[in-house]
Amino acid sequence: MIDNPYMIGVDWGTTSLRAYLMAADGAVLDRQIRASGILNVPDGDYAFVLEEACGGWMERWPGLPVLMCGMIGSRQGWREAPYLQGDAGSKELAAALVTVTTGKYQVQIVPGLEAKSFNGGPDVMRGEETILIGALAQGAPTEGLYCLPGTHSKWVSVFNGRIGAFSTFLTGEIYEMLCRRSILSALIKSTGSTSDEVRHEAFLRGLDLAGDGAGLLHQLFSIRARALTGAGDEGTAGDMLSGLLIGSELLSVGDRLRSFRDSLVLVASGAIADRYRTALAHLGFKPRLFDAETACMSGLCAVAAEGLLESTKSTNLAT
Amino acid sequence: MIDNPYMIGVDWGTTSLRAYLMAADGAVLDRQIRASGILNVPDGDYAFVLEEACGGWMERWPGLPVLMCGMIGSRQGWREAPYLQGDAGSKELAAALVTVTTGKYQVQIVPGLEAKSFNGGPDVMRGEETILIGALAQGAPTEGLYCLPGTHSKWVSVFNGRIGAFSTFLTGEIYEMLCRRSILSALIKSTGSTSDEVRHEAFLRGLDLAGDGAGLLHQLFSIRARALTGAGDEGTAGDMLSGLLIGSELLSVGDRLRSFRDSLVLVASGAIADRYRTALAHLGFKPRLFDAETACMSGLCAVAAEGLLESTKSTNLAT
Repeated sequence: MIDNPYMIGVDWGTTSLRAYLMAADGAVLDRQIRASGILNVPDGDYAFVLEEACGGWMERWPGLPVLMCGMIGSRQGWREAPYLQGDAGSKELAAALVTVTTGKYQVQIVPGLEAKSFNGGPDVMRGEETILIGALAQGAPTEGLYCLPGTHSKWVSVFNGRIGAFSTFLTGEIYEMLCRRSILSALIKSTGSTSDEVRHEAFLRGLDLAGDGAGLLHQLFSIRARALTGAGDEGTAGDMLSGLLIGSELLSVGDRLRSFRDSLVLVASGAIADRYRTALAHLGFKPRLFDAETACMSGLCAVAAEGLLESTKSTNLAT
Repeated sequence: MIDNPYMIGVDWGTTSLRAYLMAADGAVLDRQIRASGILNVPDGDYAFVLEEACGGWMERWPGLPVLMCGMIGSRQGWREAPYLQGDAGSKELAAALVTVTTGKYQVQIVPGLEAKSFNGGPDVMRGEETILIGALAQGAPTEGLYCLPGTHSKWVSVFNGRIGAFSTFLTGEIYEMLCRRSILSALIKSTGSTSDEVRHEAFLRGLDLAGDGAGLLHQLFSIRARALTGAGDEGTAGDMLSGLLIGSELLSVGDRLRSFRDSLVLVASGAIADRYRTALAHLGFKPRLFDAETACMSGLCAVAAEGLLESTKSTNLAT
């Protein structure tokens, strides 16, 4: 029996849709998960997919605000929510929401952010801004260096509780590509009966390999050369590759890691959280850990709390 | 009318088989090209494919030596020709040939090489050793730094006309993977009506990007960020990516490039030769250029000349 829900939050990315019915304190009252990522929506009928997933909630509580974040607001999604430029907090995000309609209900989309990367080039995020705001709402430090690992890992400077410069790394995508179909694939697939301890050591060797100065393109091949010449343990190529790529990412943020040694925050879930924690510990760093999925929900609540609730209630087509 | 052939040389790699009927001076008297790379040979019946391609030559000149190089000598090929360790020239290669038989004819395989990479880890080559020996036979400097660009680019120290340390870079394979199916694919495919000049400039910008210290995994993503934020020219992502990856490779051999400034050798053919020449020129280097396909044939001749011809004639099953 669900009482008094506060809002519907939707994290709609490239590979999945995760919808949450939330209480005012951020507690999850109900959830619906679909494999309908934005690239997997027939005829681009996003309204249909959204109503299929959480139309029941919208019908039962017709005035409830619905807030979405992630790639649904990209050029390939439902409607582009243009990147917000410069430092941003929950206020700026709430002020720049983009509205779409299912026909019966209005739904808001959180915009992504555009900023300078650590090296001065342009960089963008979409979805991570909501996770960051959520981690802050959960008590993460208002000044610090945040790591959000994944397909496209983000390293983010947070100042005064606002999102500043950030750099994106293609780490997860390169890892997946090399596992799936490359000269390393066959090696990676033959994990055999390798023990967890041996695999852990291979991960650490991969981390160390990243620092040998030979360059990533050579280091990648050297995983194969090690296997061919018997210098690598059987069945550990995938772990070594993972260590190498994460190590390469950490090396690239090296100076900042040291500067923010005491205010490092890792926002991640599951196996990838373990990998990054292990990698950071290997280099002598101990980040505070926040769960990414929970942070995303908190972030949607925090943005909604910045005035969306009242304005949505008064304008929703169904009221 | 073909007179007096000297040998049959076969360059048999992962994606194709190239067979040459050669004169004693290395001139090509006839050639047969097949798409039957070693991973594309039904039932692993290499003898059948070889006889289909050059059985006519073998029948007409039954005592003719047949020498193969490339991945045909790998664990996934006809028979493994174990990697030769340490510095090697044509003599060492000729002394370590591995023999297979089609049933009617004996055929020899040139072994690959195993050596220390520039950074001390293990590295391997298979096929490139023959190309290097061939470039040397064609008058390339007996002391120098050689670049053989490709799917797996090789940078090789040559001393006293022998192959020393070398490092392999996954440059070409990563480029292909990112073009084919990655977050960058759509950008790369939309080349539109971009002029050659604009594309050339994007290639140079990619080369410069490699040197900004941000790390390759971030630089790869930044090609996308530039396009999304309007900081990149439309239709140039592929050229920028190519420049970035080649630039990253050149950066990794930077010290050696400077040390061997006056004895740089580029062994390549076609478009990839142009790209590497442009990239090296952009950094102030002018390599001597040798054609890779011609060098491969010369290399097969040079190894054959090291005694193979007589010994093969006396042992061939068909004589």
